[in-house]
Amino acid sequence: MPILVMKFGGTSVADLERIKNAAQKVKREVERGYDVIVIVSAMSGKTNELVGWVEETSHLYDAREYDAVVSSGENVTAGLMSLTLQNMDVPARSWQGWQVPLKTSSAHSAARIEEIPRDNIDAKFAEGMKVAVVAGFQGITDEGRIATLGRGGSDTTAVAFAAAFDAERCDIYTDVDGVYTTDPRISTKAKKLDKIAFEEMLELASLGAKVLQTRSVELAMRFNVRLRVLSSFEETDENSGTLVCAEEEIMESNVVSGVAYQRDEAKMTLVSVADRPGIAAAIFGPLAEAGVNVDMIVQNISEDGRTDMTFSCPTNQVARAEQAMTKAKEDGEINFHGLVADTEVAKISVVGIGMRSHAGVAAKMFQALSSEGINIKVITTSEIKVSVLIERKYMELAVQALHDAFELENAG
Amino acid sequence: MPILVMKFGGTSVADLERIKNAAQKVKREVERGYDVIVIVSAMSGKTNELVGWVEETSHLYDAREYDAVVSSGENVTAGLMSLTLQNMDVPARSWQGWQVPLKTSSAHSAARIEEIPRDNIDAKFAEGMKVAVVAGFQGITDEGRIATLGRGGSDTTAVAFAAAFDAERCDIYTDVDGVYTTDPRISTKAKKLDKIAFEEMLELASLGAKVLQTRSVELAMRFNVRLRVLSSFEETDENSGTLVCAEEEIMESNVVSGVAYQRDEAKMTLVSVADRPGIAAAIFGPLAEAGVNVDMIVQNISEDGRTDMTFSCPTNQVARAEQAMTKAKEDGEINFHGLVADTEVAKISVVGIGMRSHAGVAAKMFQALSSEGINIKVITTSEIKVSVLIERKYMELAVQALHDAFELENAG
Repeated sequence: MPILVMKFGGTSVADLERIKNAAQKVKREVERGYDVIVIVSAMSGKTNELVGWVEETSHLYDAREYDAVVSSGENVTAGLMSLTLQNMDVPARSWQGWQVPLKTSSAHSAARIEEIPRDNIDAKFAEGMKVAVVAGFQGITDEGRIATLGRGGSDTTAVAFAAAFDAERCDIYTDVDGVYTTDPRISTKAKKLDKIAFEEMLELASLGAKVLQTRSVELAMRFNVRLRVLSSFEETDENSGTLVCAEEEIMESNVVSGVAYQRDEAKMTLVSVADRPGIAAAIFGPLAEAGVNVDMIVQNISEDGRTDMTFSCPTNQVARAEQAMTKAKEDGEINFHGLVADTEVAKISVVGIGMRSHAGVAAKMFQALSSEGINIKVITTSEIKVSVLIERKYMELAVQALHDAFELENAG
Repeated sequence: MPILVMKFGGTSVADLERIKNAAQKVKREVERGYDVIVIVSAMSGKTNELVGWVEETSHLYDAREYDAVVSSGENVTAGLMSLTLQNMDVPARSWQGWQVPLKTSSAHSAARIEEIPRDNIDAKFAEGMKVAVVAGFQGITDEGRIATLGRGGSDTTAVAFAAAFDAERCDIYTDVDGVYTTDPRISTKAKKLDKIAFEEMLELASLGAKVLQTRSVELAMRFNVRLRVLSSFEETDENSGTLVCAEEEIMESNVVSGVAYQRDEAKMTLVSVADRPGIAAAIFGPLAEAGVNVDMIVQNISEDGRTDMTFSCPTNQVARAEQAMTKAKEDGEINFHGLVADTEVAKISVVGIGMRSHAGVAAKMFQALSSEGINIKVITTSEIKVSVLIERKYMELAVQALHDAFELENAG
């Protein structure tokens, strides 16, 4: 029997009605001939309630107890989903992480999946079970304690099961109906993509398209698991949603697949830094220690042994960055004349694997922005993306202009 | 290190404040030199929420899934209690049923405890853990599935742990401060007992003193586990509450330890039943099948081959009993002239192990009731109790009169 993995997030199982709706989608796949592994999140709101209790109890809490408490939300959904399926005459049973067992590292609250032995679930499939409903986000350590996987854990659980069971596909049901060329709230011309390559999805995810957690896409890419993102709240069929897959599976890649943005960026410039070997480490070491997530980095050409160093980070980390730099200066580790923070910028990126074989994407991007009178403050490029920082007030305009320039209304 | 088992029910851990209060009681016992095993229930209301979801999902639900869902409430409390203790610098960790592992039969939702191996918890005590916080009400079957113990399961878990770990005592913290000579709402002279024998507690429990579940008292009696009932909401010390223990531990037994009552009893009489061998089975077989909980049974002296058969049952089962009897008559299995139901009766019982060596308890009881002009409708007796049915409107008066007659205000 071919195996399909289906994952339902918190809003998709928020109450009994929605669990029933999700179960109907599962039943349809069983009728199509699949053995199904369903990964469920906690009913929305439940995890927050549990986390709230733990945090109110203790500030510096034991992560093992945190995990024991928080994992219970998924267990409840798994049982209820299994009962709902049984009610529809679909042979189903629930599995908590330790019952599978999904083995993890002992990094509680942020554990890595180490192994998913197939034996137990395969044996039940052989006995006639059609659906294994697995509580997502959790596993068991070598010490026999429950560990949760941290942010994005349920998506990651789903992909890991798909890899372990050689699933035909891993369907991620969520509250959007796929991956779009850009945010439909910003451009009404935004188009749902039928397919997107793993690499593109990674760039889009880390750039703020919050459909899939980066971690699960990385895992899918590594094990070549075909991921599909689709809506739990609409009628869906074999062609719904967006397929995230290997580049080879996409016949004719778009040069550009999407336009992403990050609203709350800040641009910081260290003016006239003494340019010497090791200066980058002397700057970005202390920033990393201070917990500043540095994104873009640009170094100007050196003049008279001094240079300007510009980087971007989230606006709410500016104070922290300033503190770290001032301290590094006082300690004599770096030397600069001034520190200029511009907190009114946004980042815009165009992403597409087709770029590799098409020159001129960056030029076309700069031209489109220039036509709208938008000034570019910082540029960085990678193999499949070009990112720029611009004044925040032009952000929406820039996204729309770029969406038009690359004719993304014809994508899909 | 001597081991103490402490059990906290749902109202005693209803919120974080109460969990903290309970944890303080645990800490005090650790300071007294005990290694402590704490058994916790779900925060009050949580189990009902979970049961509600299961029942709304499915009428004829899979008990294995019911158990998987419902057991999660206790897991949450166990984690939170452990965190709270750690916060007070008490080395603690939580244990879910399967982690102990508490092994049960596979009678899901009403499983029996089969074994509690000590190894895992003992190993942690040896490493310096002072408190094992165990999620009550649950265990694991041979098939590796979660099973719950059903009604009174958390009390029973506590007693079973006390037996398995040779605990010095099993303290049951609840919302009353002990076992009383009668219901204080009915007699202001009701007195808290310092000690009560297992056998007496069993009679009082099954007669409606709802402090301890019958099942846990039976288990405690079998393994001679000293049980103490005390309040979570008051300051408590070594002498608080009521100790339920073996008869031998009670130096001077009271002739009568308590007066119990059951308000909603009904008395039913089958008039002029043909008296023949097997007639009792022919009557009470169909009643049992119909789910009628028959309590007292009295058979009159036979005259001319016919007799009257009287029994009592809860008032809300009268209709069911009538139906069963009518059907049995139609089927020709029994023959009677009439069926009289009196739904306006109550049962009063006096209980005490001292009765065994003291004659005259029944006589004194009848005398006391007679002095108040209360007519007795049915009488049954056992070794350590005498029960009567009387008109319901005299119930409070009867309890007070008997409490006075046996001078229970001097008990304790």
